[in-house]
Amino acid sequence: MTQTATATSSTIPERMRASVLNGVKTLNIEQVPTPPMASDEVLVEVAAVGVCGSDTHYYRHGRIGEFVVTGPLILGHELSGRIVAVGAEVPQSRIGERVAIEPQKNCRRCRECRAGRYNLCPNMEFYATPPIDGAFAQYCVIRTEFAHRVPDSISDEAAALLEPLSVAITTMRKAGVTPGSSMLIAGAGPIGIICAQTARAFGAAEIIVTDLVPERRDRALNYGATRVLDPVQTDVATAGLDVNAFVDATGAPPAVMSGIKAVRPAGTAVLVGVGFSEMPLPVEHIQNLEITVTGIFRYTDTWPAGIHLVASGAVDLDSLVTGRFGLERADEALESDVDPTSLKSVVYPNGLR
Amino acid sequence: MTQTATATSSTIPERMRASVLNGVKTLNIEQVPTPPMASDEVLVEVAAVGVCGSDTHYYRHGRIGEFVVTGPLILGHELSGRIVAVGAEVPQSRIGERVAIEPQKNCRRCRECRAGRYNLCPNMEFYATPPIDGAFAQYCVIRTEFAHRVPDSISDEAAALLEPLSVAITTMRKAGVTPGSSMLIAGAGPIGIICAQTARAFGAAEIIVTDLVPERRDRALNYGATRVLDPVQTDVATAGLDVNAFVDATGAPPAVMSGIKAVRPAGTAVLVGVGFSEMPLPVEHIQNLEITVTGIFRYTDTWPAGIHLVASGAVDLDSLVTGRFGLERADEALESDVDPTSLKSVVYPNGLR
Amino acid sequence: MTQTATATSSTIPERMRASVLNGVKTLNIEQVPTPPMASDEVLVEVAAVGVCGSDTHYYRHGRIGEFVVTGPLILGHELSGRIVAVGAEVPQSRIGERVAIEPQKNCRRCRECRAGRYNLCPNMEFYATPPIDGAFAQYCVIRTEFAHRVPDSISDEAAALLEPLSVAITTMRKAGVTPGSSMLIAGAGPIGIICAQTARAFGAAEIIVTDLVPERRDRALNYGATRVLDPVQTDVATAGLDVNAFVDATGAPPAVMSGIKAVRPAGTAVLVGVGFSEMPLPVEHIQNLEITVTGIFRYTDTWPAGIHLVASGAVDLDSLVTGRFGLERADEALESDVDPTSLKSVVYPNGLR
Amino acid sequence: MTQTATATSSTIPERMRASVLNGVKTLNIEQVPTPPMASDEVLVEVAAVGVCGSDTHYYRHGRIGEFVVTGPLILGHELSGRIVAVGAEVPQSRIGERVAIEPQKNCRRCRECRAGRYNLCPNMEFYATPPIDGAFAQYCVIRTEFAHRVPDSISDEAAALLEPLSVAITTMRKAGVTPGSSMLIAGAGPIGIICAQTARAFGAAEIIVTDLVPERRDRALNYGATRVLDPVQTDVATAGLDVNAFVDATGAPPAVMSGIKAVRPAGTAVLVGVGFSEMPLPVEHIQNLEITVTGIFRYTDTWPAGIHLVASGAVDLDSLVTGRFGLERADEALESDVDPTSLKSVVYPNGLR
Repeated sequence: MTQTATATSSTIPERMRASVLNGVKTLNIEQVPTPPMASDEVLVEVAAVGVCGSDTHYYRHGRIGEFVVTGPLILGHELSGRIVAVGAEVPQSRIGERVAIEPQKNCRRCRECRAGRYNLCPNMEFYATPPIDGAFAQYCVIRTEFAHRVPDSISDEAAALLEPLSVAITTMRKAGVTPGSSMLIAGAGPIGIICAQTARAFGAAEIIVTDLVPERRDRALNYGATRVLDPVQTDVATAGLDVNAFVDATGAPPAVMSGIKAVRPAGTAVLVGVGFSEMPLPVEHIQNLEITVTGIFRYTDTWPAGIHLVASGAVDLDSLVTGRFGLERADEALESDVDPTSLKSVVYPNGLR
Repeated sequence: MTQTATATSSTIPERMRASVLNGVKTLNIEQVPTPPMASDEVLVEVAAVGVCGSDTHYYRHGRIGEFVVTGPLILGHELSGRIVAVGAEVPQSRIGERVAIEPQKNCRRCRECRAGRYNLCPNMEFYATPPIDGAFAQYCVIRTEFAHRVPDSISDEAAALLEPLSVAITTMRKAGVTPGSSMLIAGAGPIGIICAQTARAFGAAEIIVTDLVPERRDRALNYGATRVLDPVQTDVATAGLDVNAFVDATGAPPAVMSGIKAVRPAGTAVLVGVGFSEMPLPVEHIQNLEITVTGIFRYTDTWPAGIHLVASGAVDLDSLVTGRFGLERADEALESDVDPTSLKSVVYPNGLR
Repeated sequence: MTQTATATSSTIPERMRASVLNGVKTLNIEQVPTPPMASDEVLVEVAAVGVCGSDTHYYRHGRIGEFVVTGPLILGHELSGRIVAVGAEVPQSRIGERVAIEPQKNCRRCRECRAGRYNLCPNMEFYATPPIDGAFAQYCVIRTEFAHRVPDSISDEAAALLEPLSVAITTMRKAGVTPGSSMLIAGAGPIGIICAQTARAFGAAEIIVTDLVPERRDRALNYGATRVLDPVQTDVATAGLDVNAFVDATGAPPAVMSGIKAVRPAGTAVLVGVGFSEMPLPVEHIQNLEITVTGIFRYTDTWPAGIHLVASGAVDLDSLVTGRFGLERADEALESDVDPTSLKSVVYPNGLR
Repeated sequence: MTQTATATSSTIPERMRASVLNGVKTLNIEQVPTPPMASDEVLVEVAAVGVCGSDTHYYRHGRIGEFVVTGPLILGHELSGRIVAVGAEVPQSRIGERVAIEPQKNCRRCRECRAGRYNLCPNMEFYATPPIDGAFAQYCVIRTEFAHRVPDSISDEAAALLEPLSVAITTMRKAGVTPGSSMLIAGAGPIGIICAQTARAFGAAEIIVTDLVPERRDRALNYGATRVLDPVQTDVATAGLDVNAFVDATGAPPAVMSGIKAVRPAGTAVLVGVGFSEMPLPVEHIQNLEITVTGIFRYTDTWPAGIHLVASGAVDLDSLVTGRFGLERADEALESDVDPTSLKSVVYPNGLR
């Protein structure tokens, strides 16, 4: 792939405004080069960028596990925008499309890519994962197949939040949720709430959500939960929940331990919440009931499903937005999770709409 | 099912010799009633019974986790024999058949049974699991469909050891082993050795076996291992093994931890070894590589496959027998595992052949 | 199972009214013995019975393929009712429950039953399949696990129609429908319409329904179809539909041929419509695109999912009822399909409600 | 990918000898340009090329279904050789490797490629499929990941025949063959014989092969068949074969019809033999027994498994070679199938070894 872009719009500036992470809790607005576009890529004018826990973690700690920020980095990987230029191999007709971005660039050649597991490509370049820049900027580039057209009925914010919805879709697929399934979801934060909605859209009949915070439990009832539990009051492990699938959206060892114990024979546990390298798991229960435990890492082929779920009204992403910020206030957006009732902050690199 | 058996052989005595566990390390030869046979069952004159680690554990400790011996119990669940009588619903022509016994009796009605997962039936009556008697006795009964005919080319001992082979077959199915797969197996005891052979029979190209004992590692090379490792010398987690599947046949936390870390993206870990209720697992690795971790609990529909593997010569069970004991020496058989190079002891309730 | 029922209600008469098929197009109201109940069965006072195409076919032709009516037969296998007595093994507390009936009795022991495919049990006794009687009668018996409790929010009619809904659920499972899938359904009769609704409930994004009759196409748009096609006007095979799955609900060779050709690479075709023993299929297309073609035969484990789909409002069965008949008018119900715009007739063996 | 190859061997000539199909049954030895090598490709000196039925069909008829020869074409797609030059992105260390070629070049970007189904890529460039040249030539190019290193224990001929073995491996995967499976294979030609061997290597317990020719049936017994049948003498459909899977390697409608009828409930039929666009299939049997019918189209990720099967001795490819030809006798090789007892002809573009 040659790096000689065929920009087709005369209005693309050579430099753009970006919010650059220059150190722990150090964000600066800078003029940086507009990224070059390969022949199979498109240039996207960024509309809205959701703030993810991983963005906040890089901002606060400069690393996530093995991924370490060693130079200036642009954060943000949940985004929507509009195609303003296309590479030589991409039809000109794509210019002007409103798109949601699948923020990954896999090598296409390795064992994992050849097997259709491009999310596990060891050569992956993923937005806002050091040293790859993300989307707290006016423009970004992405391969044409990962710029997913969205209908006008989907807002910029919802289009951006198709990224966490993709996490939830992947989770439901791994959990094997089908109409009539029963689910336990630990955690009523953004991922837990989106998972609850997605479980409902996949047809789950029983969706039990646990959270320590009453307000968050209440909120879950508006987003698909058929029942909420305070894990301090109810011992999830012994309450006879007997669910087909457990999804952990906390990363907290007690939630994981008790949640797996709530799974029925031949059921599944999907660990989505992160934070620990190792964790004690109930292996005897896993063995005696032949439970499957797995995790998810990003996604493959989820945007089309997500677009349908949002466009059909099965999943509501718009009402999850609890904070809106211009690019210059990206730091506030990244700090907004200190309020446990906040769900999703959105940054608008080209100005609030 | 009425309990009025239609015994079809006049030679069946009303009482039989059995080795009864009457307390920790307390085995007595007793005359006990020959078990009654239901109309869909057959009565089997027991030929050979393999000694399993669970038999030894009940013998030494009187319990395994939640399963507690509270009264007299006949041990032994790996067995072969000859049908000597049949219930009213079973064809008379079965009398005289040499059979290998699938030692379980499920309820046939519950959710798990209806779904084909009869091994997970909550109403299961399993041989030698309190309070259900096993096969250290002259006779036992089993439903006709779980008395699997074996050809003359399969010895009594091999027919008995189709039970641990069934564990290995279930493990390979769960591990998704197909021709060309690469495997890591921790532990070169009876299950590890049978798993290595079964992996080879399933077509695995690379079968790496770890064990702390040099003699056991050497032995593994005779039973399918393509490579053996001393886990003290080689850090399995970081040696780049990159296997499709890991099978733990040790139950030892360090083996499980390092073994899972040796699995490639989208691979599988099957925990067969037991002993701990909880155990730390490498959740970050599981998540980032989307590894599937599960366990096995007994088996469904494995005897036909096992009979083929043994009859075709793909798996050798006969040479695994390192000790032979009459019923009166069942205690010695149960103690024989103190020698780390012993593999399988066999008890002959109707006399050594 | 002994046939000594433990009737627990003194009001059960020894004989009951039934509509008996005594020859082609010969239905008579007769007093017949109330069926005996086994210890694991329940006696159900029948509320509503849907008329299926197979009932009509037996009524008109006295056979369906290899299944031949050779004596008096009670038709009807889509039914709901109320438990009025229970066998000795069934909790008394079930008496009074409103239930939907899964009208099959499998042997529980054969290879298929053990594997969880009880629908394929060669020893199956299925309602209204000669010589097994069905539900055009005041009472019927069924094993307790196949009498599925329904909430009050589900009407008698909808509870009866959980049977064809089960056909649709099985079809969607076989077709692999998940959120975002695209579907082609040939035929807008009862099964096609229920399949369209079920596809929507499973999350299908595109649901194309074909039918020769304009009124039926229009109706499909009210039941989940996102697009309808007249197969005379549009060549389905070459229209570039590129669907994940094709469902045939016609049994008509041209619909099957063109429908399979509309399936994308690695997609699935499920043949639900019956009538031909053999049929030409596009094998080159099947081969070059690695399409999977299969059929369905009844169902396993679908009622719980169906109850959820109806109770949640995702599937509407009530409005499908286009005719209501007392038992004495069962013949009219069976003939009602001569009107192509009729969908479902319901018979009430204990009187119209 | 730029087309500027970085040839690393000074001995590569600009032109090479090739056998060119210039019309029906018109092969000429010509000097043609050595194909250019992209940066991710390798240049292979061809050692051995197996003759496939498709090569013969193009030679005789100038087309296969929709694939039409419209200009000069080099045939041959079953091949082995030695890497003599590598593109800029490929390690120099690959030069000198003996390799088996997976003769496809997919687009890596489309929906099918992203899903891991690169064999179904609509943009595929496949060897010897018009207008893409094949391997009846001194050199050919292939992407580095599709030049599979073979050990010295695998001959040039066996390495070439890893291609039809890949067809058989794909077939066994689709057929779900695991240890203990029972199989029916129609046709004892090259594909049938390789399928029988591969079925055995996958652990099939019963491998029934049918063929009209006695000599071919006899031969099958040497290659894995456990039983052979003359379909004229035995009605395969009604003989109670009750197999898990049927593989058609004939393309003949009667064989397909009867073979599918021999499949047990929930079993699978894989149609490998080609030749008809449409064919009557037993849809009632498919429906009532929920049989899965599918086909295969080339392969994904089969060479590593194939190399293991051959290197381990589980599959014997060498003895399948019944004719050896220099490049100038390629026409004889293509005609050799007129002898029904010939199995595989091999062409040596750089001279017989």
